Order: sequence, then structure tokens, then C-alpha cells
Amino acid sequence: MKQKKFILQENELPTAWYNIQADMPTKPMPPIHPATKQPLGADDLAHIFPRECCVQELDTEHDFIPIPEEVLEKYKFYRSTPLVRAYALEEALQTPAHIYFKNESVNPLGSHKINSALAQCFYAKQEGTTNVTTETGAGQWGAALAYAATVFGLEAAVYQVKISMQQKPYRSSIMRTFGAAVTGSPSMSTRAGKDIITRDPHHPGSLGTAISEAVELATTTPNCKYTLGSVLNHVALHQTIIGLEAEKQMAMAGEYPDVVIACFGGGSNFGGIAFPFMRHNLKDGKNTKFIAAEPESCPKLTRGEFRYDFGDEAGYTPLLPMFTLGHSFKPANIHAGGLRYHGAGVIISQLIKDGLMQGVDIPQLESFEAGMLFARSEGIIPAPESSHAIAAAIREAQKCKETGEEKVILFNLSGHGLIDMSAYDQYLNGDLINYRVSDQDIKQTLKSVPE
Amino acid sequence: MKQKKFILQENELPTAWYNIQADMPTKPMPPIHPATKQPLGADDLAHIFPRECCVQELDTEHDFIPIPEEVLEKYKFYRSTPLVRAYALEEALQTPAHIYFKNESVNPLGSHKINSALAQCFYAKQEGTTNVTTETGAGQWGAALAYAATVFGLEAAVYQVKISMQQKPYRSSIMRTFGAAVTGSPSMSTRAGKDIITRDPHHPGSLGTAISEAVELATTTPNCKYTLGSVLNHVALHQTIIGLEAEKQMAMAGEYPDVVIACFGGGSNFGGIAFPFMRHNLKDGKNTKFIAAEPESCPKLTRGEFRYDFGDEAGYTPLLPMFTLGHSFKPANIHAGGLRYHGAGVIISQLIKDGLMQGVDIPQLESFEAGMLFARSEGIIPAPESSHAIAAAIREAQKCKETGEEKVILFNLSGHGLIDMSAYDQYLNGDLINYRVSDQDIKQTLKSVPE
Repeated sequence: MKQKKFILQENELPTAWYNIQADMPTKPMPPIHPATKQPLGADDLAHIFPRECCVQELDTEHDFIPIPEEVLEKYKFYRSTPLVRAYALEEALQTPAHIYFKNESVNPLGSHKINSALAQCFYAKQEGTTNVTTETGAGQWGAALAYAATVFGLEAAVYQVKISMQQKPYRSSIMRTFGAAVTGSPSMSTRAGKDIITRDPHHPGSLGTAISEAVELATTTPNCKYTLGSVLNHVALHQTIIGLEAEKQMAMAGEYPDVVIACFGGGSNFGGIAFPFMRHNLKDGKNTKFIAAEPESCPKLTRGEFRYDFGDEAGYTPLLPMFTLGHSFKPANIHAGGLRYHGAGVIISQLIKDGLMQGVDIPQLESFEAGMLFARSEGIIPAPESSHAIAAAIREAQKCKETGEEKVILFNLSGHGLIDMSAYDQYLNGDLINYRVSDQDIKQTLKSVPE
Repeated sequence: MKQKKFILQENELPTAWYNIQADMPTKPMPPIHPATKQPLGADDLAHIFPRECCVQELDTEHDFIPIPEEVLEKYKFYRSTPLVRAYALEEALQTPAHIYFKNESVNPLGSHKINSALAQCFYAKQEGTTNVTTETGAGQWGAALAYAATVFGLEAAVYQVKISMQQKPYRSSIMRTFGAAVTGSPSMSTRAGKDIITRDPHHPGSLGTAISEAVELATTTPNCKYTLGSVLNHVALHQTIIGLEAEKQMAMAGEYPDVVIACFGGGSNFGGIAFPFMRHNLKDGKNTKFIAAEPESCPKLTRGEFRYDFGDEAGYTPLLPMFTLGHSFKPANIHAGGLRYHGAGVIISQLIKDGLMQGVDIPQLESFEAGMLFARSEGIIPAPESSHAIAAAIREAQKCKETGEEKVILFNLSGHGLIDMSAYDQYLNGDLINYRVSDQDIKQTLKSVPE
């Protein structure tokens, strides 16, 4: 019988994260101070983030960074995750392609987010922090952080995007189960939130807004650090455990991917699976294609501009060089809440600029069609975010059907959709629509980008 | 570093189920016809269930029954599940006990139910059936059946206990995502449902009621077979894949369980993990203790009577020899919907009678306290059903703390609770209570048992 799943034993787990910055042909441009326009160093960032994360953020020298023993010990609660050959999906598509997915949906809280939450909370604790705060969209990151905070004995306060909180009430309950305090954002509990509500009382919230609130709380509370679930370099670094495992598992399967795909919000799950394979493009002459699948309603990779912009709506963060739709961009209320972010991570943006990877934008309905096909063939209901990766994988597999090529396609199943069933309900009832952003709207919000 | 998880590779999966009936010192008494009181054979049951399942139901000869290749192929989508050493829970309890759990919560639909759903749908398909029907409580079984039906190209109709449907709306969406037709029970779509609603318009539903409706549909629809998620011998048989894997995995850990625990509704997850270990008590002089954890609100093992009773509320099924509270017993609306069933499986009932295992009853609040402690230590939010097993395991671990014994405790984590967050919400808000049944109520419903 054909082997379906490839699993590493605990003693085979990677013991270091891969830092692609060391191998990039063009190093990322530095974050800069909004007022002075001077480059920021680790010291400048360390009042917001755990210090070790700031060092990792700007490290362009070390290609591998050891995973602390305490973090590795916690990774063993759930890692490795299986690499799965999607035979049933291949059959449904009648494609000659070999489709594999890395199944991060079996992680305790249902997504890949925990990989970085554990690392960030460990460093925060090590540095004497007692409280952590963060933003969350669909709630995947907030749930992971709430759990990681418990593990390392920290108090957690989470700002959840208001619209996502309403669409997915169970995720707030999960955070509360792990003892976190959860607030819908924009809220009246911060100056940033008040300002936003004053301008727009019906603001549905966005990751940018929630980040503003969490950063404000961190910088105004003693012994409190801010943590981020995506976008930043150190977050993608922690997620490379995904791709490093997948690399070993693909070898067990006797294959190497021609195409690597992940959905794209800020870049953490994409970087996580892609970077370890990309290093072989950069160093060993491999020629794998890398595709980041973003929602049509939030198309920063395919239709944004490469500019220095704020990471949050209120303009509290440093300026980051990235593909952006403008930090005032308000994404439509799609169900893939984790992809509703106006900018791309700094590394990703540079890689796109250098032609080392590409973005594709996926309409909401196509993502749900892909998710349904995947669920009915492989038996796993994917998160609406992950369905964007599945849709992009299906496009590639269909090309193979036309050309007859037996390409090896690998995508990251970043999470399951069991908490997103109201979205599937709406899809099954025919109540979902596509949201394509007009060029004019993008032009408008790009005006919010500082010169 | 200590090993946390023990995982089998695909080629190490068991290839046969274990049939404890072959090794039981007292064979189970046969099902009998309600009117004639004559024992029923496989032929008599085959108008309701797939024929092969009926043969397995009554097989007291073969100790191992090969798993069909097609089923094994589908098991490989998700099996083996990890055996996990609960170091963090041990630490939280400060117990010298070694606690292990078999993590069935990572199965695609979040519980162990899929192990038998795949087998039953395979046999139904093989015999030319086009439609399957069933009942479901919390929806774990219905979701598993809906997926398994899709896998083997069958149409599925599911009757879901009305109160569970309201408490856990996402599970109906999951079933619909897999293409199943879902009806709240009692419904007006069957004679059984109409009779029940006529007697009690506000009947919250129960597994017994839903079974009546599904059986009626199966026996009045051409090419339609009924499938059951628990109680029956062949269901527990299919679930023994859990214990057979666990046996190999415990050997990897270099240990053997002194105590094996599972929650108890009809007996499928209990039998699944317990029977493979119990055979070494029966044949190899082992002395493991087996504990079935039932809810205080539905205490058939600890306070029911051993009698011939109907499996359903309306009295459509054959009479089965079992510990029962009476088929008219209406369990309280606890959140562990999967444990709300009036009787125990035939094998389990005989084993209890023969003193080879025991039941314990767990109050609802104790189960949630246990679930919370488990979630915060091990990072997995357990299903309310599974929390009963955790509570029983914690009781045993606390005894070890008192005596200083390093006992090896193994329990089955039958499913996760991510779809049950409204229950956790209520617990966190202090809105949950215990439901202890009075002796008088039990005496009353036992009157419904035929003489």
C-alpha cells in the first residue's frame, strides 16, 4: 500500500530555526523611526518586544539559530506535524501532480501560530516580563498566545478584531479558557481605539487597529511586552520549524517540491514552510517556485506598492519597508480574518521585489470551493485562510493536468476550520460573495503612506 | 530530554481488530426478539445493519478480525494517533503516577468515532447499499459518519438530538459540509418522532429517541442501512484499533498500564482502548484495573440494573441484555451529549457483571474542572465527554499521591472540545450545575423495561 503520511520521531525534530536573512542576496532594508527617519536597532525595538526577538529580527548573519531547550520541550507536545500525500485530492482533480500538505491543523489550538507563541513567551519570561499583550484577527494567534502565556506563567491580554470576534465567538472562549483577558478592537480602553471609534463608530476592526491598541497597552504598562503573530522577521523565523520538518519528510517520501504554496496574511506561515526550501534555490541551484496566496480583497502582494509604511492603523509602530495597501486600508469582512492585513513582512517584500517568489490573489468563493473539495476528499475541514493555499495548489495541479507534468506541489495547511463553521454555513446557503478591491480604493489608501 | 509522544509509522499499524468476545469467560447473552423472546441471529439483524457488521456482532469465535484493505487505506489518513505522556498534568497534580493518554482528538473530525464510521460505510457500500442513516448526540458520530459516507460514495441522513443541535450548532454545519442531511430529533418526519412529540412537545431529544427515528428510516427506505456509533459489539470491535496501537506505543515507552480509563456513553471508546489490554488480564495473568467514567446524570453502570431492554426509546430495536436505566430514561441536558444514553453495551455489561471492570460516576462540575486543568497543562481543550475520563484519571493519580505509588495510568482522550466552547463559556461564567439523578427517578424509568 502507498504511504500516506510521513512523520518524524521526537529525536528527529530540527533543533535550530532557519534565518533566511543570512542568505538573502539583497538584505532587507531596516525599520526606521517615523519622525527621525533613522534606522532602528534592537535597542530601539526592545521597549516593545522581548529583547531576544529584536535581536533575531535584525540578524542578517546567522543562518541557523538554536531553538532554546525549553521551547523544544514544548514543541514536543505536538510536533512533528504530519506531511501528508493528498492522494484523494489528486484523484478528485484527476491530476498527474503529486500534492503534499504539511498538516499544521493537528496542533493543539488548531493552527501553526503556537510555534512562535511559545518562543516569544519563553523569551519574554526569561527577560523578567510578567505580562504579554497582542492583537488577533480570526483568533488563531490569540488562542496560541493565551496558551503559551499559561505555559510560561505570564498574564495575557488580547485585542481581537471586532468583526472576527462576532464571526467566531468560540475563539474568544478558547482564549478565556486559557485565562487570557480578551477585548474587542477597536475598544474604548486605549487612546488609539478611542480615536478610531470617534472617526468611525461602526469600524469593524482590523489587524492594524488591534495592533495599535496592543502596542499602546505594552508601552504604557510596566513589565508588559507586545507579541506579534505574523509580519515580523522573528515570527517567520520561529515558523521555519514547519519547513525544516517538511524538508526531512519530503526526503522520506523520496521527493522534492517543484512548487511550495502557503496562504498569506503577514507572512509567518508562508515564510515558515517556504524559507527552508528557498535556501536551496539561493545556495544549491534548486529551482522551486514559491507562491503566496492572498485574498482578492486584500491584495498587497499583487496590487500593493513597495513603500515604507506603518505596521498599524494608528501609526504607533516603526516604519517598515514593505508591499502595502496603505496602513489605513480597511479590508472587506471576508471569513479569512487572518489574511486581513494591509502589508507584507519585510523579508517577503524584498523577496518579491527580487523576483524570488510571487503572489496570487484568490477570490473568496474560489477559496471556499477549494476548501470544500479538500474537506470532502481529505477529511479535514480547512481554515478559510488555509483554503487560499489549497485554491492556489489546485490551480497548479490543474495546470499539470493540461500539460501532463508530474509536478510535486507542497502546501501548508496552516489550520483547521472547525471554529469557522458559520462561514461554511454561509457558503452552503449561497450567502457568500467575492470582494474585489477597486484600483481607486487602493490609490486612496496608499495616500496614507508617509512620504 | 524525556520523550513526550510515541507514534507508530504507517507500516506498524495493526492490521486486525481485536474481538474480546472470543476470550470472554462468560459469553454475552444474545439479543432477543421483543415479541417472541427468541434469540436473534445475524440474518435477523441484517435488515437493519450491514450484514458483515451483524456477523461481527455475534462472533464469539475469532479473536482477531482482519481490517479490510480499503478501510486500512483510509485509516492511514490519520492513524496512528499519538500516545502522549502527560508530564505537565503530572506536574500540576504533583503525583508520582505516570499518566499517558491516547490522543484521538487529532483525528480529522476531532474524535475517535471515525474509526468505526469508515468500517460500517465500507461494509454498507460493499453490500450494495446506497444510503446510510444514523443518530448522533453531540454530533461527533454524525460528523464522522457524514465524512465516511462521502468517502465511500453513500448518501447520509443523520438524526441529531435536538438539545445537542442547539448547544453545538457547528457540528450540524460540519455534517452538512460533508453533504449529509441533518434533522433535529425528535422530528415530525417519522412515526416514532411524532409519537414522542405528541406525548411531550418539549422533549429535548436523547440518543434513544434519535435511534428510533433513524431505525425507522432505515427499515422503511430501500437500499438504506442503519449505522450506530456506539453500544453495539461491532462498533467497539472497530474501535480496538485504539488500544492495539496504544499497546505497541506503551511498549515503546517501556511501560504497561496499571489502570486503563475511558469515558462511557455506550462503550465504544472505552472498549476501543480497554479490550486489547483486557485480553492480557484474561489470558496472560495481567492485573490491570479498568474504569469506565460515566456522568453522574446518566449512571447506568453504577446505579442501573442488568436487564433485557430496548436500545431505543420507541422500542424498535431488539432486546439487549445490559445495564440500563430503562429505555424511557431522559438524561439531564449535560454538555457531554455523547454520554446521554440509557444503557451500556452488551459486552461491557457482561464484563461488569463478571467483575472484570468497574464504572465510576463523575459530577458535571468535576468533569469541567478536570478538563480545564488538562487544557491549561497539556494545551488541548478536551471534549466534555473526554473530561469524564480525565476526571477519573485525576482521581487515580491523586490516590497515587497519597500512597506514593508510581502507577501507570492510561486514558483515552476521545475527542477535543473546540466545538464545545459554549459549554466552557458557561463553566467560566459559573452557570453550570451538577445533576444527580434520584433513586426514585431511576426506579420509575426502570418500570419501562419489559419483563
